[in-house]
Amino acid sequence: MGAGPIIVRAMKKQMQFTVSATDGRARRGRLDTAHGPLETPAFMPVGTAATVKAMTPEAVAETGAQCVLGNTYHLMLRPGSERIRRLGGLHEFMNWPGPILTDSGGFQVWSLKDLRKLTEKGVTFRSHIDGAKHELTPESAMAIQNDLDADITMVLDECTPFGVDEAEARVSMELSMRWAQRCRDAFEQRPGYGLFGIVQGGVYPNLRAESAKALVDIGFDGYAIGGLAVGEGQDLMFQTLDVTTPHLPEDKPRYLMGVGKPSDLVGAVERGVDMFDCVLPTRSGRTDQAFTRRGQLNIRNARHKDDPRPLDADCSCYACTNYSRAYLHHLAQSKEILGLTLLTWHNLHYYQELMAGMRHAIESGTFADFKAAFEAQQAAGDIPAIEGD
Amino acid sequence: MGAGPIIVRAMKKQMQFTVSATDGRARRGRLDTAHGPLETPAFMPVGTAATVKAMTPEAVAETGAQCVLGNTYHLMLRPGSERIRRLGGLHEFMNWPGPILTDSGGFQVWSLKDLRKLTEKGVTFRSHIDGAKHELTPESAMAIQNDLDADITMVLDECTPFGVDEAEARVSMELSMRWAQRCRDAFEQRPGYGLFGIVQGGVYPNLRAESAKALVDIGFDGYAIGGLAVGEGQDLMFQTLDVTTPHLPEDKPRYLMGVGKPSDLVGAVERGVDMFDCVLPTRSGRTDQAFTRRGQLNIRNARHKDDPRPLDADCSCYACTNYSRAYLHHLAQSKEILGLTLLTWHNLHYYQELMAGMRHAIESGTFADFKAAFEAQQAAGDIPAIEGD
Repeated sequence: MGAGPIIVRAMKKQMQFTVSATDGRARRGRLDTAHGPLETPAFMPVGTAATVKAMTPEAVAETGAQCVLGNTYHLMLRPGSERIRRLGGLHEFMNWPGPILTDSGGFQVWSLKDLRKLTEKGVTFRSHIDGAKHELTPESAMAIQNDLDADITMVLDECTPFGVDEAEARVSMELSMRWAQRCRDAFEQRPGYGLFGIVQGGVYPNLRAESAKALVDIGFDGYAIGGLAVGEGQDLMFQTLDVTTPHLPEDKPRYLMGVGKPSDLVGAVERGVDMFDCVLPTRSGRTDQAFTRRGQLNIRNARHKDDPRPLDADCSCYACTNYSRAYLHHLAQSKEILGLTLLTWHNLHYYQELMAGMRHAIESGTFADFKAAFEAQQAAGDIPAIEGD
Repeated sequence: MGAGPIIVRAMKKQMQFTVSATDGRARRGRLDTAHGPLETPAFMPVGTAATVKAMTPEAVAETGAQCVLGNTYHLMLRPGSERIRRLGGLHEFMNWPGPILTDSGGFQVWSLKDLRKLTEKGVTFRSHIDGAKHELTPESAMAIQNDLDADITMVLDECTPFGVDEAEARVSMELSMRWAQRCRDAFEQRPGYGLFGIVQGGVYPNLRAESAKALVDIGFDGYAIGGLAVGEGQDLMFQTLDVTTPHLPEDKPRYLMGVGKPSDLVGAVERGVDMFDCVLPTRSGRTDQAFTRRGQLNIRNARHKDDPRPLDADCSCYACTNYSRAYLHHLAQSKEILGLTLLTWHNLHYYQELMAGMRHAIESGTFADFKAAFEAQQAAGDIPAIEGD
């Protein structure tokens, strides 16, 4: 290969995050992982069971997504994290060469309610698949995510339910902080791999501040904000972000877990959040719902049955480039699998375009204008229907 | 561009079929349609409701398929053939730029049993979707397929059930022949578009011969062999082909409807058949069944759960290039949509490779060797399992 110098790009042991521009509190950044970069603000599609439902990985990448999520709870039960390790890790298993973030499994376990038992050590639960007993501890959560080969590993925490009083929220948050320390101790640091802490504390500003400080004292590669989008509403979510992000380091990424609607993303980026994940665009795509620049629509509605226009005239996704609303309506009525794929594809593309728009706006110092235009377009509502003969 | 001559390729009014090589009774040919060529022998995937289930059109084309089927019965009921015409025809509607063959709707109507009524004029039936009354006549079947813009239109016929006596089979066949003449009279001939007759007559050689001669007297762009693969078994199907294809013109394509298994295709090509369609590769793909060079397998079987190898080591399809049996097993266990897509993709690719292999063998005069190798490979059975830790 010629006589030129061999350039060795040494990857630093810590995961690198660089903020290249800010606009108000909104940040434009880049997170470098072992499997490539993540441009932020970023939306990460959810690939629960080692697949972003109804999509090939190539289609996911085509939407502009750089990082996908895997759910530890689902993967540890089926096919099992050790099996995935033997098969080369989650990237190889699911054919996704880019960055992968895995949650700790905790969030899904909390939703099992009667099937779980919490102690200082960890949580035991019964599988929803076969009833088998399993345990998650801070240490095993790290080992499992290591088996999965996640670029970004999340600490095990207790997701404090919405509606508990401050005393209960404190007990829960303090347990999560002790677990965070145990996760940090157990996490195997590898170049380009990172561990994120999760701020808890419910809707109590002092608890959120305490939690953030406790995590910063331990030291993480990134900081997630957990326990939101659990019923508190957008106003209270934004208020909680307002009192939390100021306590997080400027030089580390901030990740709002499980959020959200397009307007949630815009408001959270405005408040200094860098990363998001949510099942909304994919799940909506499988229930005939489409997100467009002009709001949400249900493609099963009869108003679309003779409409030769795409879902969104300004969208360059595969679905909008090649198919009419009439065809998508027909696929939905006929319960055809391709309909689920096309709506998921469009929704993920819309979310990625929204993030790209915000990244550009932050770079050019026009975030306020972007937000105003976004809100005006969303408020305009869908285009008028076309009636058939 | 530039000053070169403008070459106008005039398309002849009749659909063109050219046989370029033969090997025994097997034929290598090419059918030129208004939407491009179909290299024969050809397998045409079924796109019942204006979609080859679980596949994008690009994925279908990637398997090597050149022509897909649409089902008139399904499309006339939903979304309606006039709606498809208004939306630009079936090619535009479903984003398939290549040739499309539509059946007449007759076959699905026969399966309605108690919901249909047959007269000399045609057949009335009630929709399985909403119970609404519909009529199919030879004339309306031509009009509907014209609305759909099918490159290849099929005559309306009565599919004679297997097991009826010769007298009943004759009455049924003779009705189909009178309808064939009415279809021919009603069909609007356009350049590159063609109408195929359908030979009936059950398993009675003299009726098959009579039916073939009646159709040849009327004159069609191709000749289908109907009423097979309805329970008679492979031996009787092959015997019926043996007494039918000799009565069909050498210079027109022959299409065996609704067939079949890989060994059916090989045996029928050997007997001079040029075109096939069947739901088997697609339906099997949605029920966890894979066709490989070494026979059929069920990916849900636990023997695959730790197997890092592809379905078929000699297959170059998207599924075999990128995914392990272990992953496909996991998707099947988890009932993930991507699993349906990947198995369908593989099966269609296998069918297309089989057809390409036969085309090559006929060209090189080695069809007998090809068939022997095919049968030996199929008989070898699947590769031994790999056990996990």
